[in-house]
Amino acid sequence: MAGSNFGDLFKISTWGESHGKALGVVVDGCPAGLELTEEDIQIDLNKRKPGQSSFATPRKESDQVEILSGVFEGKTTGTPISLVIFNQDQRSKDYSNIKDVYRPGHSDFVYDNKYGFRDYRGSGRASGRETSGRVAAGAIAKKLLASLGVEITAYTSSVGPISINRDKFDKSEILKNPFYMPDVDASKEAEQYLIDIMKDQNSSGGTIECIVNNVPKGLGEPVFDKCDALLAKAIMSIGAVKAVEIGSGTNASKMTGFEHNDFYDIESDNVVKQTNNAGGIVGGITDGSQIFLKATIKPTPSIEKTQPTINSFGEKIDINIHGRHDPIIVPRAVVVVEAMVALTLVDLLLKSMTSRMDLIKKVFN
Amino acid sequence: MAGSNFGDLFKISTWGESHGKALGVVVDGCPAGLELTEEDIQIDLNKRKPGQSSFATPRKESDQVEILSGVFEGKTTGTPISLVIFNQDQRSKDYSNIKDVYRPGHSDFVYDNKYGFRDYRGSGRASGRETSGRVAAGAIAKKLLASLGVEITAYTSSVGPISINRDKFDKSEILKNPFYMPDVDASKEAEQYLIDIMKDQNSSGGTIECIVNNVPKGLGEPVFDKCDALLAKAIMSIGAVKAVEIGSGTNASKMTGFEHNDFYDIESDNVVKQTNNAGGIVGGITDGSQIFLKATIKPTPSIEKTQPTINSFGEKIDINIHGRHDPIIVPRAVVVVEAMVALTLVDLLLKSMTSRMDLIKKVFN
Amino acid sequence: MAGSNFGDLFKISTWGESHGKALGVVVDGCPAGLELTEEDIQIDLNKRKPGQSSFATPRKESDQVEILSGVFEGKTTGTPISLVIFNQDQRSKDYSNIKDVYRPGHSDFVYDNKYGFRDYRGSGRASGRETSGRVAAGAIAKKLLASLGVEITAYTSSVGPISINRDKFDKSEILKNPFYMPDVDASKEAEQYLIDIMKDQNSSGGTIECIVNNVPKGLGEPVFDKCDALLAKAIMSIGAVKAVEIGSGTNASKMTGFEHNDFYDIESDNVVKQTNNAGGIVGGITDGSQIFLKATIKPTPSIEKTQPTINSFGEKIDINIHGRHDPIIVPRAVVVVEAMVALTLVDLLLKSMTSRMDLIKKVFN
Amino acid sequence: MAGSNFGDLFKISTWGESHGKALGVVVDGCPAGLELTEEDIQIDLNKRKPGQSSFATPRKESDQVEILSGVFEGKTTGTPISLVIFNQDQRSKDYSNIKDVYRPGHSDFVYDNKYGFRDYRGSGRASGRETSGRVAAGAIAKKLLASLGVEITAYTSSVGPISINRDKFDKSEILKNPFYMPDVDASKEAEQYLIDIMKDQNSSGGTIECIVNNVPKGLGEPVFDKCDALLAKAIMSIGAVKAVEIGSGTNASKMTGFEHNDFYDIESDNVVKQTNNAGGIVGGITDGSQIFLKATIKPTPSIEKTQPTINSFGEKIDINIHGRHDPIIVPRAVVVVEAMVALTLVDLLLKSMTSRMDLIKKVFN
Repeated sequence: MAGSNFGDLFKISTWGESHGKALGVVVDGCPAGLELTEEDIQIDLNKRKPGQSSFATPRKESDQVEILSGVFEGKTTGTPISLVIFNQDQRSKDYSNIKDVYRPGHSDFVYDNKYGFRDYRGSGRASGRETSGRVAAGAIAKKLLASLGVEITAYTSSVGPISINRDKFDKSEILKNPFYMPDVDASKEAEQYLIDIMKDQNSSGGTIECIVNNVPKGLGEPVFDKCDALLAKAIMSIGAVKAVEIGSGTNASKMTGFEHNDFYDIESDNVVKQTNNAGGIVGGITDGSQIFLKATIKPTPSIEKTQPTINSFGEKIDINIHGRHDPIIVPRAVVVVEAMVALTLVDLLLKSMTSRMDLIKKVFN
Repeated sequence: MAGSNFGDLFKISTWGESHGKALGVVVDGCPAGLELTEEDIQIDLNKRKPGQSSFATPRKESDQVEILSGVFEGKTTGTPISLVIFNQDQRSKDYSNIKDVYRPGHSDFVYDNKYGFRDYRGSGRASGRETSGRVAAGAIAKKLLASLGVEITAYTSSVGPISINRDKFDKSEILKNPFYMPDVDASKEAEQYLIDIMKDQNSSGGTIECIVNNVPKGLGEPVFDKCDALLAKAIMSIGAVKAVEIGSGTNASKMTGFEHNDFYDIESDNVVKQTNNAGGIVGGITDGSQIFLKATIKPTPSIEKTQPTINSFGEKIDINIHGRHDPIIVPRAVVVVEAMVALTLVDLLLKSMTSRMDLIKKVFN
Repeated sequence: MAGSNFGDLFKISTWGESHGKALGVVVDGCPAGLELTEEDIQIDLNKRKPGQSSFATPRKESDQVEILSGVFEGKTTGTPISLVIFNQDQRSKDYSNIKDVYRPGHSDFVYDNKYGFRDYRGSGRASGRETSGRVAAGAIAKKLLASLGVEITAYTSSVGPISINRDKFDKSEILKNPFYMPDVDASKEAEQYLIDIMKDQNSSGGTIECIVNNVPKGLGEPVFDKCDALLAKAIMSIGAVKAVEIGSGTNASKMTGFEHNDFYDIESDNVVKQTNNAGGIVGGITDGSQIFLKATIKPTPSIEKTQPTINSFGEKIDINIHGRHDPIIVPRAVVVVEAMVALTLVDLLLKSMTSRMDLIKKVFN
Repeated sequence: MAGSNFGDLFKISTWGESHGKALGVVVDGCPAGLELTEEDIQIDLNKRKPGQSSFATPRKESDQVEILSGVFEGKTTGTPISLVIFNQDQRSKDYSNIKDVYRPGHSDFVYDNKYGFRDYRGSGRASGRETSGRVAAGAIAKKLLASLGVEITAYTSSVGPISINRDKFDKSEILKNPFYMPDVDASKEAEQYLIDIMKDQNSSGGTIECIVNNVPKGLGEPVFDKCDALLAKAIMSIGAVKAVEIGSGTNASKMTGFEHNDFYDIESDNVVKQTNNAGGIVGGITDGSQIFLKATIKPTPSIEKTQPTINSFGEKIDINIHGRHDPIIVPRAVVVVEAMVALTLVDLLLKSMTSRMDLIKKVFN
């Protein structure tokens, strides 16, 4: 139960350390007959890849994915899909400077404590690089959902104190700026903010939002496996996330019932809601309206600024973390959020097929 | 995979509808040898029980728990513990007024859609009453944790716009006011706020915080089953929760790395941190400091104020929901938050026993 | 992970001790819209009920089932179905004679060792009475499968050295004799054999076979969750089973490939096989032909004949187990085998719905 | 839920097709601190490797394992261990002769039916080669168990009609003959038998037995996850197995209770049994005596002898399966049985650590 598995029916197992031989993921339970190429997966991996702007680490990680099993003649076979990314940049670096240090905001101390020792090279399994397996598997989940018309879009909604202006929201802008922001003006302000932060050898937090359109109704299981509960787990499992909000989120605490309730209405024979404080999920089950969620991401813990801490011998020390670190995690995490949302929804989608006798009879007749 | 199961090693299965014959829970995997009485469980159920103040529904639900299995001569046997609460107040009421109505903010519409029909009596399985099974199982988890010194305390941190003042935080105050607030002045303001809201036939949201002291280090599994990820799922699975925050929560987005990083220090040979923005969990694993989490609870959707909606025939209608409804969900959800935190931690605690060869050899020698 | 759960999508949790207040089962994941009454379940429980012939214990166990949740207006709602059987015959008997004794063939010793102590009243959780929860849940699974045309029939194929004659196989005979044998002559021989065994204060083993007709093709998942593997687990989990065979079973070891291979053929456009050594399962997946399995059941360990053993104080003693014990377990286990086969197949059936993109599109269009 | 996962706490995910790029396995949940090298794993893979005698396929499969993650400085880190075996012998062979044929005894037909199409190259995922991932993971499980003194030994107990003589049982003989038989005379007879079978272009079945010594008491969870139930699943999940027996196995049906019961005794203060019909497992829980199980393996379905069958177009055809096939599966499956037993026991061992409050307190103090 070491926790590198996610999903029940569309189940993934990720593996790999930041500076090991390779990283990868096994996807078990992908239905047969989905067209799939390495290119489908590479597109998403490239969004997470470092070195693409001056606001991301210049490390070279080619992140080239290879499909080792589960696809035959261009289609998934229903058997496990094994994806691997070999590490290129694996030179025998000297890690002696962090080997015995407990960096603030990092998992060095808890790993040493839990496991007795740790793979200290580039944070090992606790590295953000671990998410490449999620993104690869997520690309398959997204393709499956897309074939049913489901569209998942995540974007950066704030960088430090700079938030997007919802009136200027422009989806087509997202892929055009290094922060994946849907507001070109905000992205320019964010750029200036980060330049300042970097000068100070510091780093910045931010937020990511994700919207899902054309969601099938009925995804989510009552009680513990509610759609929002599983999304919360999925998003909070991304290393640096400190908060998850669905729909109205933290605003709900100050609203009244009359303000918060989404009133149902009928539009050309379809059930619609006049507002969407629910964020597309009521009683844990999707109602067919847009899913809206928001994640808060903490600032990158690796900073050059001098920090006091201790080492594994219990001595107080000062450290300056040199190296090629992202001044902000947010932009590279955008596609990770999409992946986790996709993985959650595809699993619930498969489960929802078994919820009614009439659906069962539909399949077996 | 209908989702009424929670936990892997300490696994619970809840069941029961609001107005059915009974509700209950089966706890499988509770270690043998824990002293347990019905009274241990009843104490927590009483905190959730309605009718205890003028700010909670005056419905009579005696919520008397019975242990049907798994306890022998006062101790758990290691076999499933079955707990049942028979419904007392089950008179044949006329539900025809809500049978075909889709109440705003309720799950009537999604249940009808997902399952083809629904048990419409008092919201059936989607009722807040479903949480009584969680609370009962949670009381066992809390007792197990308490025997290891772990202390879980949840409380109301805000009612609508009224927040507690952290400088006046007084744990001993929590059980003395109807809102379970650790600040007597805030509780009085909350009282006045709710009186006003009720006059307006409206309802209020709020927030709950939970702190856990004396947490063993090492709880949480890397990657997907991080302690914070599983807590997020657990808390978001409570019906009305719209946001979950850990440690710094949503504040993290505007902080810099230098501000957010918790600097390690040594105090009388123990590793300590100068701050706790992490909320006691780093890299998904507990570090031994206090766990801090916060849940945002939406306002009660059942209000008497006139609301526009539709019925199952697709007709637009106006409704006024009469009946015995809580003007705020928060106070009764406090003990539910404690239960979900306890259930999450006890499961991770059992898992963490298997993480190292030396622990294994300790048990088998 | 205490193991009282079975199934992934159609998941059951059984609970209860032989002489506790009650026994029961929670069924989570039963699709909505299945018609279900207590009578549907009672029919199967009555087959397992003791006291129905002179070859079964005369203990009075009324085994009256009650549905506490999950069924509304005669149909399953998709939420957990809780079934309970209250123990009638729960008088305060004196168990001091077995409290400290390790009965041969019983689990007294292993329970004491694993859990530190045990509920010694009537074997507690290790009693055959535990299977009543399985039978109750199995009745629901059987009803679901029957609605798709799947027919499950188990019967006694041997009692000690007395085997049925396959040429005289008569399905209609099964429910007419106390041994559930499909061969009236064999049942008479079995009767005489048991009378002799009982005179000697001894007990007898036997075998149960189970056939499933009209099985949908495609049930079973490759590799570990093969249909035969899951059936083997299901059947071997019944207390007294010592062997499970599928199709040719143990005979396969002496056959050649040419003898064992089932040759495919075409009959009125359907794929058929000339033989069925596979027992309806190839590569772990059902091929649409009859499933055939066989279970070997050990003799009842409780016998009056004097046996040497030890007690919990490590002293050697002789015991004679008086009381109302079945001279053979087999007949009462027949319906348990049916239940376990049904529970296995229904879970695989639900899973198989998600195996192909075209099935998914069928449901979501 | 595609079924390529096994285990809950020590969880493996296998992947790979016979003639794809590679095969492998991810082991999640292996405790940290176990010394592990590729050589530890290679030893077992070599036992399964083809081409080692004239009674095994002369195909060249170098089966060289590579550890890609989870091991650092010679020890497991507690994070997922990824093992890969690249396929060497992957030349573009012409498979057109079996592409559309449904070979008797093979899964061609069921795969086509379940998934809509199949990877027909060398049986794809349904190939015996799939077991190399199990053997690799099993080697880790065996090493962990060995560090606690647990010893697992499987061997061939019969080849067609030739059985070992138990009086001549010699463990040291097992690795000295191509059949892994513990009786040199039987192995010579088996050799002659197989020569004759091969002349007839036919194949043979057989049996494998497995004994486990020095098993910790208390492994196995009551009810569904009994040790024998999980072993039955594990063994039956190996492609060609048709029967699984524990202890007395099929003999139990003809025994009386007095014959079958294992009488407890005391020997130098230890609880012992005078016989072991239980096969080391009572009530689903290990009692510390030797585990004994037996698997029946069907004859290799691929034979050169002419067989009638059909193709995917529904036409009747005759086939002769040429190629490099094992005349008997048994010897190469011996190490697979060991692997599956080890994987089952290690998972139960980890679970058993959480069964008692006193064990929990032992770890957390």
